Amino acid sequence: MRFVIIGGDAAGMSAASKAKRNDPAIDVIVFEMTQDVSYSACGMPYNIAEPGRDMDDLVVRKAEVFMEKQNIDLRRGHMVTAIDRGAKKVHGKKSDNEPFEVEYDKLLIATGASPRKPDIPGADLPGVLTLKSLEDGRRIKDYMASHPVNKALILGMGYIGLEMAESLTHRNISVHMAKPGPKLLPWTVETLGDMVKDELESKGVTLHFDAQATRIEEISVGYGMKVALSNNEELQCDMIIVGIGIVPNSRMARDAGLELGPSGSIAVDKAMRTSDPDIYAAGDCADAFHVVTGERVWIPLGLRANRAGWAVADHITGEDVEIPGVVGTAVFKVLDLEVARTGLTMKEAEQAGFKPVQNDIKSRSRAHAHPGAERILINMLGDADTGKLLGVHMVGKEGVAHRINAPAVALHAGMTIAEFLQCDTAYAPPFSPVWDPLLIAANELIKKV
Amino acid sequence: MRFVIIGGDAAGMSAASKAKRNDPAIDVIVFEMTQDVSYSACGMPYNIAEPGRDMDDLVVRKAEVFMEKQNIDLRRGHMVTAIDRGAKKVHGKKSDNEPFEVEYDKLLIATGASPRKPDIPGADLPGVLTLKSLEDGRRIKDYMASHPVNKALILGMGYIGLEMAESLTHRNISVHMAKPGPKLLPWTVETLGDMVKDELESKGVTLHFDAQATRIEEISVGYGMKVALSNNEELQCDMIIVGIGIVPNSRMARDAGLELGPSGSIAVDKAMRTSDPDIYAAGDCADAFHVVTGERVWIPLGLRANRAGWAVADHITGEDVEIPGVVGTAVFKVLDLEVARTGLTMKEAEQAGFKPVQNDIKSRSRAHAHPGAERILINMLGDADTGKLLGVHMVGKEGVAHRINAPAVALHAGMTIAEFLQCDTAYAPPFSPVWDPLLIAANELIKKV
Repeated sequence: MRFVIIGGDAAGMSAASKAKRNDPAIDVIVFEMTQDVSYSACGMPYNIAEPGRDMDDLVVRKAEVFMEKQNIDLRRGHMVTAIDRGAKKVHGKKSDNEPFEVEYDKLLIATGASPRKPDIPGADLPGVLTLKSLEDGRRIKDYMASHPVNKALILGMGYIGLEMAESLTHRNISVHMAKPGPKLLPWTVETLGDMVKDELESKGVTLHFDAQATRIEEISVGYGMKVALSNNEELQCDMIIVGIGIVPNSRMARDAGLELGPSGSIAVDKAMRTSDPDIYAAGDCADAFHVVTGERVWIPLGLRANRAGWAVADHITGEDVEIPGVVGTAVFKVLDLEVARTGLTMKEAEQAGFKPVQNDIKSRSRAHAHPGAERILINMLGDADTGKLLGVHMVGKEGVAHRINAPAVALHAGMTIAEFLQCDTAYAPPFSPVWDPLLIAANELIKKV
Repeated sequence: MRFVIIGGDAAGMSAASKAKRNDPAIDVIVFEMTQDVSYSACGMPYNIAEPGRDMDDLVVRKAEVFMEKQNIDLRRGHMVTAIDRGAKKVHGKKSDNEPFEVEYDKLLIATGASPRKPDIPGADLPGVLTLKSLEDGRRIKDYMASHPVNKALILGMGYIGLEMAESLTHRNISVHMAKPGPKLLPWTVETLGDMVKDELESKGVTLHFDAQATRIEEISVGYGMKVALSNNEELQCDMIIVGIGIVPNSRMARDAGLELGPSGSIAVDKAMRTSDPDIYAAGDCADAFHVVTGERVWIPLGLRANRAGWAVADHITGEDVEIPGVVGTAVFKVLDLEVARTGLTMKEAEQAGFKPVQNDIKSRSRAHAHPGAERILINMLGDADTGKLLGVHMVGKEGVAHRINAPAVALHAGMTIAEFLQCDTAYAPPFSPVWDPLLIAANELIKKV
């Protein structure tokens, strides 16, 4: 059997490796349009924070290992441009423009996603940079090495923007952030957003709300830009990082007539099959089922990509695999804060037909009288009709990142708030109050549902 | 209705407060034999570590608050000595030896547990100290303030012993630990125990295994002791901390003919009722159901005590409450390590009729290439017959304490290893590899079951 994979990052290389482990006789061909495979994209902001670190530190497994040790036919510099479902072929061209075509028995589309760019004058200036691929990371680092960057503007306040704010602050760069909307973390209650806002401002980051960039101009070639914002401010800066979201790379799938899911992602079933049973999709280009709502969602994150890649490999090698989907768990660090979420937002819960109720509490990361305790804020959501736990959002200086996994598991298990409240969580004074902040949140929320 | 409570710490005062909140008309009387109520016993090792801190910092809520603000009839210095179930009365004596008796409609036994003392010559010397009550904590601190303590011996290597090893090391005291058995953390695999052993030894703690104390002698009155160990060693030290376990204070319950549970604890149902429907028991004196095995267990810990106290109050005020029980989650800190467990050990799993399989893995606390990653060791247990997750044991420098709550929730939900493996856990490079160490452990274990 020939298993062809388009895209050589998390989902693609996970699928390639696992397919070969499951059955060494399978002929696995991976087409990757860049020279990079299998790298930790999420590590880029932390790498950029350290001028001395090589971006290639983020490579998880070298191309040579895949090719020589794992016997995977990895073809870099190969861009697939079209899928011919009738002939079961992919067409493309190499970096030297030479065309190629290859037949497949099973095909995996793992083409990832691309960063959005603002559709405004000046968006293509060399100092306006996005961060998605390792090549993007190198471009930012090279730009910073070859230009004096004292002041940077970050467009967007999502997790890429916030992680880059930390990264650049670490490099003593004056950071400004701007977004069209009126608040930070709009998906949760204001208290949590305010805690992140205070942290950013206390570390010198300037936030501009209701401020969409409308025009970027170079001040002198390669040195400094002027950015006009929709709130009539004008900012000068040396570099602009664009973190206004990503879009799934699903054009080829769409052109091949495959069904699409939310936000233009490629719709897949629980075995990662697209609407063509010989074609799978996985990673940032594909959708997933949300375990809490049962509905299709597009939440492109690293764990899902790896897991989906494995599932594809297991499925094509004969395992009757079905993976349940995601519950929307995510975590990021912003300076000294940890921000985590799992499950739904109020809006998502309403749209899914729940009758959501939320409650936010303030607790502490350590026991009563234990030194060094930090504030933890939790917003918890439940369904007034069924008493089910629907989501948890959390911000704090310590004990947030890993704490989110307990409610994530509870969401997978379909627990009610009352059931979650009875869970036997760990207690020792250096790590939590005797009633864990999550239990305190559940206990308060249950009074409302 | 008169609700009488014997014992004024976690379970007793939780029940008293909640009963009054639920129904202010209830007459709540609490008898506490000491002068201390509602304190964080678990905080004592950390308080002892700081000579300048007052032991009373650990009081969570003052007696006056319970009496004046909450209208609870709290009688300190009152020791209840007997329960007359026929007459529905308790008998006792005050600290001035004056007898008292009081009738009850509902009674809660929340008498806690007492530390074991070794039954050897010299165990009653003033420098041989236990740590359970706040009074014990004061006694240790006073002893250290009034005697030169350069070298301490800790008998036992359970969590009290290990927390005290940290505490005394923090005070620059040379610490020796001795236990009768051959290894540290005998409930899990050797790799985890060895990691803790290495940490203790690297910070100067000397461990003596197969070494039961057989005789303690004073060298000169109040200054220095000689301890003979069963391995023929003889140690000199200035203070001995005894941490060889605790026993439930269930004598009164036994004398009153109530049914007992494991280790002589008081047997209770899921509403905390003893075999007498008007008498409840909660806290360290009472047993609980283990959610994984369905069997009675005695795992005296703080969260259960608080939760059981609340359940009693809810039940006597008319709520049809049933709490499922415990899954054996516990965490403690030893110097720079976090040690956590949830669920069963191999021995417990075998005794409960499972066909347990275990597997231990080594992972990291942060992503590939992220600076500052620390080793995390996980031993995970599953049932070969059903594929169910049975337990997780974990040791590491960071990210262990809160990470244990995810499998704890999975145990409450009765998840299989395969289901747990599909949970959507949080990932960001500062906090974990993309495959969380717990998922790596589940993925390896599943190959064995």
